Amino acid sequence: MGGHFGFFRRIPKLQNFFNGAKLIELQFVFFRPKIFQMKKYSLVIHGGAGTLVKGLMTPEKEEAYKIALNEALEKGYAILENNGSAMDAVETAVNHLEDSPLFNAGKGSVFTNDGTHEMDAAIMDGKTLDAGAVSLITGIKNPISLARDIMEKTEHVFLAGEGAMRFAKSLGYTLETPEYFYDEHRYQQWQNIKDSDKFQLDHSMKKEGKFGTVGAVACDKKGNIAAATSTGGMTNKRWGRVGDSPMVGAGTYANNKTCAVSCTGSGEYFIRGVVAYDVSCLMEYKGMSVEEAASEVINKRVLEIGGDGGLIAVDADGNIAMPFNTEGMYRAFKTSEEKKEISIYRD
Amino acid sequence: MGGHFGFFRRIPKLQNFFNGAKLIELQFVFFRPKIFQMKKYSLVIHGGAGTLVKGLMTPEKEEAYKIALNEALEKGYAILENNGSAMDAVETAVNHLEDSPLFNAGKGSVFTNDGTHEMDAAIMDGKTLDAGAVSLITGIKNPISLARDIMEKTEHVFLAGEGAMRFAKSLGYTLETPEYFYDEHRYQQWQNIKDSDKFQLDHSMKKEGKFGTVGAVACDKKGNIAAATSTGGMTNKRWGRVGDSPMVGAGTYANNKTCAVSCTGSGEYFIRGVVAYDVSCLMEYKGMSVEEAASEVINKRVLEIGGDGGLIAVDADGNIAMPFNTEGMYRAFKTSEEKKEISIYRD
Repeated sequence: MGGHFGFFRRIPKLQNFFNGAKLIELQFVFFRPKIFQMKKYSLVIHGGAGTLVKGLMTPEKEEAYKIALNEALEKGYAILENNGSAMDAVETAVNHLEDSPLFNAGKGSVFTNDGTHEMDAAIMDGKTLDAGAVSLITGIKNPISLARDIMEKTEHVFLAGEGAMRFAKSLGYTLETPEYFYDEHRYQQWQNIKDSDKFQLDHSMKKEGKFGTVGAVACDKKGNIAAATSTGGMTNKRWGRVGDSPMVGAGTYANNKTCAVSCTGSGEYFIRGVVAYDVSCLMEYKGMSVEEAASEVINKRVLEIGGDGGLIAVDADGNIAMPFNTEGMYRAFKTSEEKKEISIYRD
Repeated sequence: MGGHFGFFRRIPKLQNFFNGAKLIELQFVFFRPKIFQMKKYSLVIHGGAGTLVKGLMTPEKEEAYKIALNEALEKGYAILENNGSAMDAVETAVNHLEDSPLFNAGKGSVFTNDGTHEMDAAIMDGKTLDAGAVSLITGIKNPISLARDIMEKTEHVFLAGEGAMRFAKSLGYTLETPEYFYDEHRYQQWQNIKDSDKFQLDHSMKKEGKFGTVGAVACDKKGNIAAATSTGGMTNKRWGRVGDSPMVGAGTYANNKTCAVSCTGSGEYFIRGVVAYDVSCLMEYKGMSVEEAASEVINKRVLEIGGDGGLIAVDADGNIAMPFNTEGMYRAFKTSEEKKEISIYRD
């Protein structure tokens, strides 16, 4: 049996059929009917990129991060395995990361200058190019699900601030109390700088810390892809700053023709570089693979304009990329080829 | 004198010098030192695109629009002529359009569902890739100038809502009263639909009306380019909807390497298409001219995803493009080749 038919070895009945029908097999080699192709599917997630210094994290904390990443990965992957959509897989994986206190999104969001938690999120469906995004919301447990509701229940893409909160309430969203988002460590981060003009990207801390943004990209069994990104912003941020995460094209993008991308890093540079769409354009207009394009953007184009961070990407064939130009990026992937990996540092 | 040196005819002293120095001239033909090249510079502005039906506008109104466009054009162009920067030219031109009651930006902004005026704007410097954007602000006379202040006086790109208002106040911005933004015609537009769930893009009205967004792109004598876009949103819009105008890459983009772009149209589609950056990518990655790239995006790619509207674009050589796939687009341009045009409809 040729390379394309290797998977038939697991299906004895079909294999026998083809062993006795070389001519038909040859036809399949040339025409490759979709129905007989084992479609590769995959999920990639991230929990932020930054100056992760190996020595500053205890083995216990490292383990806690890896457990949280693994749980989010397995929950999202189970959806793909059960013929679910890429959209459902990325939403579920991000929901799980939002519910963890370890990552700067949802429950784990950092404190703003006002002592509140302002969150942003975006989701995009590569099949339809539909997208939903939300910014500057407070008290919402799962911003990524609100972004999806904006995509599916309004004619808009992007809602922000008080207006977005009114929309959430009109759908029956209930608000979590400030206690839900309270975290001693993040509170101390904020106390240390709140009376200064400083703000900090959570992931740019030189000490042990909780990192930036979370995100997921997936390719399902039908070859549809999707991307989702959610963030709690920057410690001590003021003035309603909007980062790249909720911006379609900057922090989040998906298109079946090319790739699904979720970014994490110094948001202002990712906005100016229109980073997520740049990966897509390099694939569409220059014929690069998802891996080549993602690397070109993160290791060259973003660096050239002074940005640091990383991204995760997947194409409609289930191929993945996870480049970052920082010391580390919380990341994990699982594919139907039974490959799985959970990592933090550059190896 | 050859084509490259035609401009020397206006400078008798230099012409005499070169007439007596054919060898030196030949060198210049090959090496073309920048200092001796007549750099083409240009300004393009728009006041929105949409279903402008010729019969529905009176000659008087048409004239009023053309006068307003001409004034904005001349004010911006004068800056370029006097060795000013592309950034100053686009800000000045957009300020002028914002101050006119005829266009849906600044003073002429439409009513939201709450009866307020929520405005968005973005500006980008093609030389540095610096950008500033603002969304969901009220009472600010010139949102584009606030966007520029965000670019120049913060480390952020994008501020929105109440936070952006606090930033404006910290800089000493004063707020206009609601009367400043009041307009009987726009009030009636709103009254007609305010109790429905409908909202409308100002430019999508089938009757005589004031149209969408305003914007400007410029190339200055140094070959630096810039883009600016400002809008008053959609009549009866709710929930803090953010359109494409303030989104770098979607409604506004500038990069000396490629082009400066300002878009107007059905914002949600322009966000999903990452339209402004798409023009840039077609130039950078496919080698298209600004005219080819702009036309490809508006007449093909945006149409394919169901979007309608147009854009204005300029490259660092001063070449311009103004494609639109609607019945009309308020637009005007002036170049140092003494070309000037002010138009509304497709000819």
